Amino acid sequence: MNQHVTIREVSLRDGLQIEKPIPLAAKLELLVAIAATGVREVEATAFVSPSKVPAMADAAELAAELHRYPDIEFSALVASPNGAKRAIAAGLRAIEYVVAASDSFSVANVGRSSAEATSQIGEILAIARGSGVTVEVIVATAWDCPFDGPTPSQRVLDIAAVARGLGVDRFSIADTIGTATPGRVSSLIAQLHPVIGDIALGGHFHNTRGAGLASAYAAVCSGVTRLDASVGGLGGCPFAPGATGNIATEDLVYLLADSGFKVDIDLPAAIAAAEVAKSVVGHDLPGALLRAGDRMRN
Amino acid sequence: MNQHVTIREVSLRDGLQIEKPIPLAAKLELLVAIAATGVREVEATAFVSPSKVPAMADAAELAAELHRYPDIEFSALVASPNGAKRAIAAGLRAIEYVVAASDSFSVANVGRSSAEATSQIGEILAIARGSGVTVEVIVATAWDCPFDGPTPSQRVLDIAAVARGLGVDRFSIADTIGTATPGRVSSLIAQLHPVIGDIALGGHFHNTRGAGLASAYAAVCSGVTRLDASVGGLGGCPFAPGATGNIATEDLVYLLADSGFKVDIDLPAAIAAAEVAKSVVGHDLPGALLRAGDRMRN
Repeated sequence: MNQHVTIREVSLRDGLQIEKPIPLAAKLELLVAIAATGVREVEATAFVSPSKVPAMADAAELAAELHRYPDIEFSALVASPNGAKRAIAAGLRAIEYVVAASDSFSVANVGRSSAEATSQIGEILAIARGSGVTVEVIVATAWDCPFDGPTPSQRVLDIAAVARGLGVDRFSIADTIGTATPGRVSSLIAQLHPVIGDIALGGHFHNTRGAGLASAYAAVCSGVTRLDASVGGLGGCPFAPGATGNIATEDLVYLLADSGFKVDIDLPAAIAAAEVAKSVVGHDLPGALLRAGDRMRN
Repeated sequence: MNQHVTIREVSLRDGLQIEKPIPLAAKLELLVAIAATGVREVEATAFVSPSKVPAMADAAELAAELHRYPDIEFSALVASPNGAKRAIAAGLRAIEYVVAASDSFSVANVGRSSAEATSQIGEILAIARGSGVTVEVIVATAWDCPFDGPTPSQRVLDIAAVARGLGVDRFSIADTIGTATPGRVSSLIAQLHPVIGDIALGGHFHNTRGAGLASAYAAVCSGVTRLDASVGGLGGCPFAPGATGNIATEDLVYLLADSGFKVDIDLPAAIAAAEVAKSVVGHDLPGALLRAGDRMRN
């Protein structure tokens, strides 16, 4: 098979987003460990409301440190044209614009309906194009919404059609609440292919119900070439009801490499980075290899 | 798709095997909860050396209680013709004979080489046939051995050929140390199909490295119709290095049902049984839905 899968490390943003804010120095310590894995893409932060997401309030300060890693493409999540401007002003060369496919989540998250959020893709692109910045559209609640229930596939396909028509660089689908399963993942991706064409397609999965890695594997077998993951499975307390940890980078690397896919990330370095993540947040993390170790096969 | 997958509940045997022995009454309490899930097959115990596996020393006493559940097919694991005789004498109607595909594991486990263990399949069958008892051959270390490293597929295929030639009722492959990944799972199963023919094919996976559910899903997509699982992921302390928990029944039920497969097990009842399992062993269990709850999609 030997297909290459790009794993984007999202611990610094999605991983830390709902944690108690940690000092910038701790984030930079985690970044050192992440960079040592050989990873090529890192979601560094989010340019969103500091009052809504206090853990990302240091976005500009963190961005100012990223020039130390010229081999890594850093991205930032934004939820509005204003966020895109802030990200670009801070020096980011890649932005992720999130559009929720379900209205209740979109309204709760950004105060706009899904259609309204979709209609801003063009403005985001216009802002980025002037600076040569890469734009990815991420569809949140692509399978299920915590308020509206199952998301009709057509809502995702409609956003994809707009994104493609406007010429976004990348497109991805996110299982925001960790309820997707491989059967539904394969099904949505099969429907997306003709709509999205040759735009790079990514997947973002949480392991909340144990199906995250199975969904990620189904995604790459269905033609997705980009996956988000977080060292240690950082992202939501794994021991609380409704836990929402990302799939763990090191577990994903193990699974994909052993299944014959090519990845950029070194496994022992990813496990070491997961240990650093555990240390900076000060609690246990759900990643399996944090417990089992890096023994590949004996 | 709507293909049916038989999930065999193995918490009473594989789940409890390496736990500190618990009283028979506690096992029966767990059995009540398991039976309430609607499960049709339960691995109840093992007829092996009580000195080597003290947690299974009450095999005959437990077997004497199973008549209370006429709708469930109970099986017992055996590692020798003598074990098979004991199981049948205790009233079991289905036995699982384990043959390790790797020599070092086989010698460490039962004091016989893989070939020697394979050569006893005929004797086991002869013992069972006289009593109309179902015989399954389970290949342990089907992908990797903790001592010998990766297992050559041909070793598994050779055991399968013997098993088919002798007319076993079922055949399954076990990822004993939790190192298999979906790519290698699909590959081995594809090789097995022509050898095993129409004998019911099962898979047994551990979630040690996070890939258990992904491997199980790959297995059913490759034509396996039977999977072992354990409520809560009981089976090995999840928080110890080298943890070896089985895939969690409730997580598997969620994943398969949501992906369009038919299963016999009720999800809320499986989560309730996982809570009972947690209570009888007195420690936390790794199953994801134990934390996330049974919210299917909102």
